[in-house]
Formats: sequence, C-alpha cells, structure tokens
Amino acid sequence: MTALDTTADRSGGTLRDEMHALGRAARAAAAILARATAGQRSDALKHAAQAIHAARTAILEANYRDLESVHGKNLSVAMTDRLMLDDKRIAAMAAGLAEVAALPDPVGTVLAEWTRPNGLRIQRVRIPFGVIGIIYESRPNVTADAGGLCIRSGNAAILRGGSESFHSSRAIVAAIEDGLNQAGLPRAAVQLVPTTDRAAVGHMLVMNDMIDVIVPRGGRSLIERVQTESRLPVIAHLEGVCHVYLDRAADPEKARKIVLNAKMRRTGVCGAAETLLVDRAVAAQLLPPILADLHQAACEIRGDDAVRALDRNAKAATEQDWYTEYLDAILAVKVVDGLDAAIRHVNHYGSHHTDAIVTEEKAAAERFFAEVDSAIVLANASTQFADGREFGMGAEIGISTGRLPPRGPVGAEQLTSFKYVVRGDGQVRP
Amino acid sequence: MTALDTTADRSGGTLRDEMHALGRAARAAAAILARATAGQRSDALKHAAQAIHAARTAILEANYRDLESVHGKNLSVAMTDRLMLDDKRIAAMAAGLAEVAALPDPVGTVLAEWTRPNGLRIQRVRIPFGVIGIIYESRPNVTADAGGLCIRSGNAAILRGGSESFHSSRAIVAAIEDGLNQAGLPRAAVQLVPTTDRAAVGHMLVMNDMIDVIVPRGGRSLIERVQTESRLPVIAHLEGVCHVYLDRAADPEKARKIVLNAKMRRTGVCGAAETLLVDRAVAAQLLPPILADLHQAACEIRGDDAVRALDRNAKAATEQDWYTEYLDAILAVKVVDGLDAAIRHVNHYGSHHTDAIVTEEKAAAERFFAEVDSAIVLANASTQFADGREFGMGAEIGISTGRLPPRGPVGAEQLTSFKYVVRGDGQVRP
Repeated sequence: MTALDTTADRSGGTLRDEMHALGRAARAAAAILARATAGQRSDALKHAAQAIHAARTAILEANYRDLESVHGKNLSVAMTDRLMLDDKRIAAMAAGLAEVAALPDPVGTVLAEWTRPNGLRIQRVRIPFGVIGIIYESRPNVTADAGGLCIRSGNAAILRGGSESFHSSRAIVAAIEDGLNQAGLPRAAVQLVPTTDRAAVGHMLVMNDMIDVIVPRGGRSLIERVQTESRLPVIAHLEGVCHVYLDRAADPEKARKIVLNAKMRRTGVCGAAETLLVDRAVAAQLLPPILADLHQAACEIRGDDAVRALDRNAKAATEQDWYTEYLDAILAVKVVDGLDAAIRHVNHYGSHHTDAIVTEEKAAAERFFAEVDSAIVLANASTQFADGREFGMGAEIGISTGRLPPRGPVGAEQLTSFKYVVRGDGQVRP
Repeated sequence: MTALDTTADRSGGTLRDEMHALGRAARAAAAILARATAGQRSDALKHAAQAIHAARTAILEANYRDLESVHGKNLSVAMTDRLMLDDKRIAAMAAGLAEVAALPDPVGTVLAEWTRPNGLRIQRVRIPFGVIGIIYESRPNVTADAGGLCIRSGNAAILRGGSESFHSSRAIVAAIEDGLNQAGLPRAAVQLVPTTDRAAVGHMLVMNDMIDVIVPRGGRSLIERVQTESRLPVIAHLEGVCHVYLDRAADPEKARKIVLNAKMRRTGVCGAAETLLVDRAVAAQLLPPILADLHQAACEIRGDDAVRALDRNAKAATEQDWYTEYLDAILAVKVVDGLDAAIRHVNHYGSHHTDAIVTEEKAAAERFFAEVDSAIVLANASTQFADGREFGMGAEIGISTGRLPPRGPVGAEQLTSFKYVVRGDGQVRP
C-alpha cells in the first residue's frame, strides 16, 4: 500500500465498506477500552512510548519516504518542517506518551453525587465519548499526541492525518498498536485511515453510528468543510485571531513585556497575538516603545492612521487585517476609543479564542472578562499562555473555539462525557 | 398575521431576511441577558408568571383559534389534548415560571479555580450558551417552559412551536415579553418565529452566526431532519426505548412493583419502560405475577416464545417490537440468557435513554451500570424517575440522548457553557 492508494487499488470492497469496517472495529475497541482499568490504559501508553523508541529506525525510514514523495511538490518551508522527523522529535513523541501515561485517568470519576428525599442515590460519572475521529494536517507528532490522549481518556481513535505524512503516521500507529497489545488492549483502539483518498473524510463525517465526535485540526477550509458536511458533533479548533488591549490604566512596563511576548515568543502558535488595540487616551504614551521593540524584533506593523502618525515605519492596515491570523511576524495595531470600542472590536473581528487586557483597574478587567466572548480571557498576561500544559491540564489536542463544551484547551479530561447512575431499593414514582 | 402566513404574504423582504433579523435581535438580547444580574432574570420570570396569569383570557382566546383551525384536520386525541389549554393549565404554566424564578441562577458560577506556579490565577466560569433555537411540537406549555429555562440560564430563545399552536404560543410569548420588559430586559430575549412556514426551520438550522445550539423536541423524523441539515450543535432528545431487566438475583416484590410502575404509571412519557427483559433462570418464577399485574392494568404483552409459554394471553413479538417506543399500554417482553445477553440487547435495541436492572447482587448492578451505554442507568428503581425534577434539577427541557454533554435531563444548568478567566500580574510565557 502506498500513499497514492485509491479506492480502485484496493481489493475487498469499496472505500465505504472499508471505512465502516474501521468504524465497527473502533466501536468494539472503545467498549473494551472504556471498561479497562486506569492501570491498563497507563500501561498501554508506557508500552507505546517504548515501542516508538524501539521503532525509531522504521519511523525515520517511513518519514524519509514521505519527505521523498513531497519533494518537488510546492510544500512551504513551515509544512516541510512540521512533516520532518529526527531522533530528537521521535524522542519527544515517546516522552509525550510517557507523560500522558502519568496523567490522572479521567474515566469513572464521580463528578457529583446526591441523595434524593425518596432515598435514590444519584451519581454523575465521567465516561469516555466513545469513538473520536480526528482529522489533521501532515504532522506526524499529532498522530502520537492524539492517539495518546484518546487512550488516556478511554476513547477509541480513528486518525486521519494529512496525506504527506501517511507513511510516518502508519509507522507511529504501528508502535501505538504494539503498546495497546502489550497491555492486553485491542489494537483497533487507535486506527489510522488506511488510505490517502480524500473521500475517506466524507465517509467519516456521516458515520454517526460508529463515530461519536469529530475533531478537525487544520486550516479554515478543512474546518468549514467539516462543519458543513458533518452529521456528527464537531469539536472545532478554529484559528486564533488573538488580541491584546492596552487600557488607559495599563502599566506601561507590563504592557511592553506582554505585547512583545504575545506576538513574538512564537509567531506560529494559535495563541499568538495578531492585533494590538490601544486606548486613544494613552496611545501616544504607550505605543512608541512597544512599536520600537517590535520593529527591533523584525515584526511588521500594520496600523490605522492614528498608529501611523506615531510610527512612520508602520504600513497601512486594511479592513482585512483586523480579521487575519498571520501566524507570522506581523501585528495589526489600532487605536480605539476606550474599553467599549475595544470589546466591540474583539467580538466583531476576533475568533473567540484568546484575548487579553492590560490594565491596573480591576473594574476594566472585569468588564473585559464579562463581555469579551472568547474561550480564554486574560488580564495582565500574555495570550501565549493559551495552552493546555500552561493551564496545568497536561497535553492537549488543541483549543476549542466553539461555544459549547469542551471550550478552550482540550486535554484528556475534556474528551469525556458522563452518565447518571441511580441506586435504589425498590423505589417507584408516585 | 395569521397561522397561514406565508413568505409572499409578508411585506418587507424574504423569509430569510426576516429570520436573520430575528437572529440578530436574539444575539443582541443574549449579550444583555447574560450580563444582567441573577435578580433581574428572576424578576423577569416572576413578572412573566404574573403576565401569563393576567393574560389568561387572551391566551384562551388564542388557543380557541388554534383549536378551531385544527377542527376537521385529522389530529389525534393525544395531540388535541396537548394543544388544548384551560384555566388550570394556564395556572400551571404560570406556576412553572414562578418555580424557575426560584431556581438557583447558574450564570457566573465559578466551576473550578486554581493558581499556577507562575502566579496565574485561572477560573472556569459558567456562561450561557448564547442563543438557543428550540423546535417543538404543538404544545403551548412548552413555549412557557422553554422560554423560562432560557431566561433562567441567561440564554436568548428563538422558539419554533408546532403550527397548530401558533396563536397560543404567540399569546404566551407576549406575556413573557411583558415580564422581560418589566424587569428591564430586552423583549427579544424570547422570540417566537412569526410564521408557520416550514422553511423557517431550514433557515434556523444554518444560522451559525446567530444561533449557538438547536434543541429539537419531537418525533424521530424531526430530529433526523435536524441532525441531517443542521450546521449547528444539536442537543437531541430522541425517543426513550427504556428497558427493565430482571436479574437472577432480583427481589420478586421489588421487580413486581418496579415493572408495573415503569410501564403503567404514565405510558406517554419518554421514561416509560417499553421492553422487559428477564433472566431465563428466574423467568418462570418471576414473570407470572408480573404479567398478571400488567394484564390486570390492561397492558398488552408482546412476548418471545419463552414468554408465550408462560402467558397464553401474550401476543408474539416481532423483531420490530424490540426497537419500538410504544408510549402506550404495550410491553415487549423477552427472556434472555443472563446479564451479558441483557446488556447486549439493551445496547443494540435501546435508545441510550434510561434503563434499569432489578437485582440484589451488587456486582450485577455495577456491570449493568458500566456496560449499558445510556444517559441514565438505574438499579432497583423505576425508569419513570428519568426526569429533571425527580433528579432535583428543577424544570427540564427534556432528556438528552446524545453521547456528548449535556446528557440526561437538561435543566437550566445544562444549558450553559464556560469560559476561562485568567488573572495575571504581568506574566509572559518563557
């Protein structure tokens, strides 16, 4: 089987049949995984970490095939970099699985319990979602991270990585399967879609009986396709058009440190700031040193007229800039008429991901918290803290920008649902 | 405007424009409602209860118009009964709103808080979903119940009731609007779709920018349409194919009381039992008095061969019976080979709603709890306890049968999401 497999190449039925077989295997594995002990799930993860380490030569060879097959294709430097593995990255994948093995197991936790006047004892108990379909870019490390988080949370995973990473992902999933098998758990708990045929995604999105939730990771077009076609619940990880707002009561030194970090610490992460808003009352005082820092760090500034009056190196921002996630050393900067205007701007142009206010005035921060409609709102801290690990949740699969739970960083605990367990002694309803 | 309004009848743009205007008004009202105080939301509910009472003549007149317009149509007795209002039912609606006014307000509750080693203080804070679109049958009381729960949870509601109840619902919504207005809250927080044109539902299902979640209530065909067409998250209330399983360790007296209550207390509720399963080892001992009770109560029995060998009055069950929600005085009864077979049957034929085991053996109950994949699992209690009020949650909009939260009874608290609020003092990420 090669990365160019198509439906016609494979014997034994249509792609739809093949996807349904995958789904049925996942459903059966999910039931076993959910009823396994926390210790078994931990063992599977530890064994998988060891298996990744043991298989490093095979994984590197598979990655080499992937890199060869994209050679000559017009892959960006960033995409190629994400695709490429080396010993250090493989060690990091194994370490990631070992770390997830050490996370608290969420399954079976009693979230609440109470007794009714009639004596019924009611518990709300955490359970896995069931089967999670994850659709992502050509990033082999996501195969290990996502597979690991699903095992930890007792969910079976159907992984559909980008076609450029097909061989790498297959080698990684083989190692995870080894880990599951050594722990006495079914290999089918983590499966890779065995074809790069794009039609496979279309099948996943309507397999309501076999998949419980779809997690798309990737560009806006993928997520929009998923949201349009899916008949399943979707945990969407949209882009992060994150803002920093400098209030009139901002501490200038904190503002300076936070803006530089929020924009430039890493420009390619979803929590990176893309737009800076400044209260008109303090713009002339606060902006010059901040913009100087950014220029110094080779960040391009795209400002409105008021910004350009303060910074002759700033380019003119267009309406489109306020909507844009650059993921690059570019910052849109706008002067606004106070807190209300800032909140309006964030809610209108932002992506409900992560937004920060810098202020020493508690009331301003509280209004920003209450009125900015984002998964994460911060005061006096960098937007780059938008990360499951920084929140203390351990590894995450991404930041959900939907309104419904799970919202914000999605770690193992957020990949679970619950059921009600009611213990009686013969009660009937009057 | 009449119940027969169509797009062409209305001036001022197309139905799509009209629905979008409704959506924008809801979005704006939602922001105000979410930021209002708990006391304001309580006041709105109390005033709405009084307004319902004050408007009882107008509501009865509107209901009379609805009843007149279905006259001659082939409405079932049950549907006509659900549609009909009288003084007592109007008083019950007002009392329901007053009760919701007294429920704890969920908005703003801090669900968790912790401090990171770097000093960041993180809170997970409960917030409303935003705008909820509710699509339901011709039951005027649902208009009041759903509107009330949305106000309590800080959500704006777009209500789309069955066309037969259009005038009644409009009169009820007018009273709720009065209540909102008297509490200083926007009338648009609870809106009724102002047309019975079925195309309005199609518009609702794709208004992603204006509606955050769709709650369909009604028959399987409505819910399937919604799940197929909706580009929005759906909180589905599917049918309840609820089971009672009599284990070999069942107490005969508890079994007898529970089966009769689960089936016959009210046959038309979603928590009513539809199938009785009995372990073969105890069938001959347990079943005869139970089936006698049921026949006595005029319940039809549809059994497999083993049941019919014990009960000559039982009709033969078909494969379809195991899937059927009768909502009537009919019970499917099957003898199974022990707990494993019972669990397999429930997971295969059931609807993941509510299922009960009767047993004195703790291990059997625990296995049933762990392996039956339903929102509510009970031991030694009637399935008719599947109800938000019986769970101590107050009023509910229904029982969600999805895997993802909210699962089980959906009350005010379950109509909320959360956001993360992070308070720093100048922290940047290393």
